Amino acid sequence: QPFFNSIKDRCDKMPEIEGFFTFGYELPESTRFLISIGGDGTLLKSMLTLKNKSLPVIGINTGRLGFLSAVSRNHIDEAIRYLLTEQYDIEERSVLQFDDGVELFGDFNYALNEITVTKMDSSSMINIHTYLNDEYLTTYWADGVIISTPTGSTAYSLSVGGPILTPDSKSFIITPIAPHNLTMRPIVVPDDNKITLMVEGRGQQFLCSLDSRSEAVNFPGKVVVSKANFSVKTVKLPGHGFFSTLRNKLMWGTDRRN
Amino acid sequence: QPFFNSIKDRCDKMPEIEGFFTFGYELPESTRFLISIGGDGTLLKSMLTLKNKSLPVIGINTGRLGFLSAVSRNHIDEAIRYLLTEQYDIEERSVLQFDDGVELFGDFNYALNEITVTKMDSSSMINIHTYLNDEYLTTYWADGVIISTPTGSTAYSLSVGGPILTPDSKSFIITPIAPHNLTMRPIVVPDDNKITLMVEGRGQQFLCSLDSRSEAVNFPGKVVVSKANFSVKTVKLPGHGFFSTLRNKLMWGTDRRN
Amino acid sequence: QPFFNSIKDRCDKMPEIEGFFTFGYELPESTRFLISIGGDGTLLKSMLTLKNKSLPVIGINTGRLGFLSAVSRNHIDEAIRYLLTEQYDIEERSVLQFDDGVELFGDFNYALNEITVTKMDSSSMINIHTYLNDEYLTTYWADGVIISTPTGSTAYSLSVGGPILTPDSKSFIITPIAPHNLTMRPIVVPDDNKITLMVEGRGQQFLCSLDSRSEAVNFPGKVVVSKANFSVKTVKLPGHGFFSTLRNKLMWGTDRRN
Amino acid sequence: QPFFNSIKDRCDKMPEIEGFFTFGYELPESTRFLISIGGDGTLLKSMLTLKNKSLPVIGINTGRLGFLSAVSRNHIDEAIRYLLTEQYDIEERSVLQFDDGVELFGDFNYALNEITVTKMDSSSMINIHTYLNDEYLTTYWADGVIISTPTGSTAYSLSVGGPILTPDSKSFIITPIAPHNLTMRPIVVPDDNKITLMVEGRGQQFLCSLDSRSEAVNFPGKVVVSKANFSVKTVKLPGHGFFSTLRNKLMWGTDRRN
Repeated sequence: QPFFNSIKDRCDKMPEIEGFFTFGYELPESTRFLISIGGDGTLLKSMLTLKNKSLPVIGINTGRLGFLSAVSRNHIDEAIRYLLTEQYDIEERSVLQFDDGVELFGDFNYALNEITVTKMDSSSMINIHTYLNDEYLTTYWADGVIISTPTGSTAYSLSVGGPILTPDSKSFIITPIAPHNLTMRPIVVPDDNKITLMVEGRGQQFLCSLDSRSEAVNFPGKVVVSKANFSVKTVKLPGHGFFSTLRNKLMWGTDRRN
Repeated sequence: QPFFNSIKDRCDKMPEIEGFFTFGYELPESTRFLISIGGDGTLLKSMLTLKNKSLPVIGINTGRLGFLSAVSRNHIDEAIRYLLTEQYDIEERSVLQFDDGVELFGDFNYALNEITVTKMDSSSMINIHTYLNDEYLTTYWADGVIISTPTGSTAYSLSVGGPILTPDSKSFIITPIAPHNLTMRPIVVPDDNKITLMVEGRGQQFLCSLDSRSEAVNFPGKVVVSKANFSVKTVKLPGHGFFSTLRNKLMWGTDRRN
Repeated sequence: QPFFNSIKDRCDKMPEIEGFFTFGYELPESTRFLISIGGDGTLLKSMLTLKNKSLPVIGINTGRLGFLSAVSRNHIDEAIRYLLTEQYDIEERSVLQFDDGVELFGDFNYALNEITVTKMDSSSMINIHTYLNDEYLTTYWADGVIISTPTGSTAYSLSVGGPILTPDSKSFIITPIAPHNLTMRPIVVPDDNKITLMVEGRGQQFLCSLDSRSEAVNFPGKVVVSKANFSVKTVKLPGHGFFSTLRNKLMWGTDRRN
Repeated sequence: QPFFNSIKDRCDKMPEIEGFFTFGYELPESTRFLISIGGDGTLLKSMLTLKNKSLPVIGINTGRLGFLSAVSRNHIDEAIRYLLTEQYDIEERSVLQFDDGVELFGDFNYALNEITVTKMDSSSMINIHTYLNDEYLTTYWADGVIISTPTGSTAYSLSVGGPILTPDSKSFIITPIAPHNLTMRPIVVPDDNKITLMVEGRGQQFLCSLDSRSEAVNFPGKVVVSKANFSVKTVKLPGHGFFSTLRNKLMWGTDRRN
């Protein structure tokens, strides 16, 4: 509530308050969208507490990361005005589901950006036998592998050489991290593929990460990654589309090398 | 006919001959598939002469290039046996359509691998204002831009840093060639997008290429690339699938750096 | 002279004028440095007209390109003040020399950034057999090859995946352009190496470029690239060092992706 | 000794045995070269036990890694024949020295391939403020940074996008691992530079690795990397030069993508 008041003071028009809710299932039926204040992780967590997963979410970015949380702190005012006047579109973002057979991440086994399988600290490279819909693709001998959504394509995967995927490209990317074989390159696959990773290595364990959460798994390990049966519906405000965010974040307009 | 005989001699089982045809529309109704002997260009051209574009094609590779023409000269025998015993699947490959308003490439304005827009020889970089479904994406200041199908993703685009796309990923790639801005990266978009390129530069002309055919165009030029309303149906024989071709051609199994 | 006056008006302190000279050899003995107004090409040309090639040059950048011409138009005033008070260092930049046996580029066969050998427009890839000090290195099958100085390492070579070289790293880079073999990577060699390129291809000609000047050469062609026996001595003003220029031009300080 | 006998059996000509030595300083004065059987790590360790560091070493490769240990198990026979008939050259390889002020790696603080500074497992990216000869270069926000010798340029650094350096290019490479800023690229610097890394991050510790050995260090940490005052003198046998090893290991001759 104190937090609410501080926002209120910065806006010139505010809706009536219906109440404060701790759990998603308490939300009144008439709720039309969710405002998630924080980073992309907060946004996904908000989503998962909802009984009605088709409720659109708008992310207000307070932290460092956040391609998805497209509204920055300085534009909350403008954003709320667009919401109230219904000037927005809905953009669906696919979500990755992680399955290792032992519920390592409980029932929060989802990732908005990427699921990674990597070597532990001081160990040597790992072998990742990779299957698409149970058909053998290849074996990566590498520091790890990133499986990324279109949303995550501008995050970690991009830093290690992956392509950018538009939010509506119904695909995932498999990007090897520091692969020993130089011809191993990022592969884009339809997002209805089941991706199976069989992981082997010389040490004891490897690391599985879902966005920024991670857990160690013993060798040999099996991980299945697929598309979750729900998506995140984000609110797209005028002037905050994917392309303009892309141009802005990657500074495509300001090439100073010349 | 002499050519036919030479093949015949190398196979231990051959179908009856119905006749020799020069034009696609002469083919008998009962034709079940087309065998295209040559490179990928020959294969596409064979396709386009057909009245029935849904006829599956099997490419036998005689030249240097040919990710699509998956059967090499040494496996013709085996391939024909699979065909006759109907041990094959059909794999659809999307085709790019080029439209510049003046029919620069006549009615053979299609490409199986990629359509490129590049600077002429001795000129400086060109500006390529790029739109997806008429929404502005960005302006590339580069040697050129490649728009590639999944089939072409293992060809030119791969050489300049593009990802690999599986044949069933309903996407195209926009890959800049030597972009001046280092944050300009390959972008994967759904293949139902209309991609518009407005090209400007300091010289007189730029070059448009459809697979290996190319023509010069005057500045400023407008090029629209979209998916053709037909696809190439290739015959996929046992043991000649995309993944095994990939592993073989990119030598993923034989990492000798260690 | 009219140009001189326009500069004069923008500075609050100007040296006395000794005269106007058209040719480098007319310059008085007492000249201490040369101010080159234009791009990097102008700067190199200024250099070559000098009888005394050890005269330091300061480049004032008027055009688009110019990593070397580190002083922008808006800092001319400040730059001249530093010069007059002798607050500067000298930085030596190595120069590439081109030799093809027929003096294709006359006696201006030098490049500050890079020498490239590329395919002509509509032709297919070329084969470039490469030798270091007459020892066989490899054969590139590619769109071309860039041989770059440290100065040129932030120009074309960088756009196709080459590394950055500090000005004092006594090395050149051999960077393939769109190589077909994915394991062909930029190679850094000592700058006292003689680099020999034997170029073959299916068309008639290939293109040789020295910085921004280019000429066509018939197949098969032989090109020898080595370090020129003079260097360009650039004036390095306080706050305009290589690292700060690098940080500024590549926008290393302003990462907006987070 | 049993090991010696097994080698002996496979060669048709063997030198007389002078004795078996456990420590380097016991080696007789007349020793002309050292044969190191194992990987590159074994080779460096052999080197360091010598009182006379200018003794040439020949590496016989038994493990997986080993660009330096150029002789494979199958060529021991041939190698020994070349040695006995003095048909070899000496190639000097520079060595990296690690200094963190607390002798984390004791007196074996050397690396032949690379020194890396990386984030710990589950932590987020680290900030690496980097100085060359005490002049500020840039701050990497990345998974880590590799500082590589020319020898190491074909190892880990190559896997994350670094260039290849010939053994005689008196340079080191600074290669960022998964840098967040996409314009951060590998930088080649003269090998007489002192490279200082000031490491900060949100977790507790980061990891320092010298070739394959690694230790955790507390934030904030300072690491100084410079060239060791000795080099490794490797024996270069006919037909086992750097370029041919390169062509062979990177399979430059066998491009099967066409």
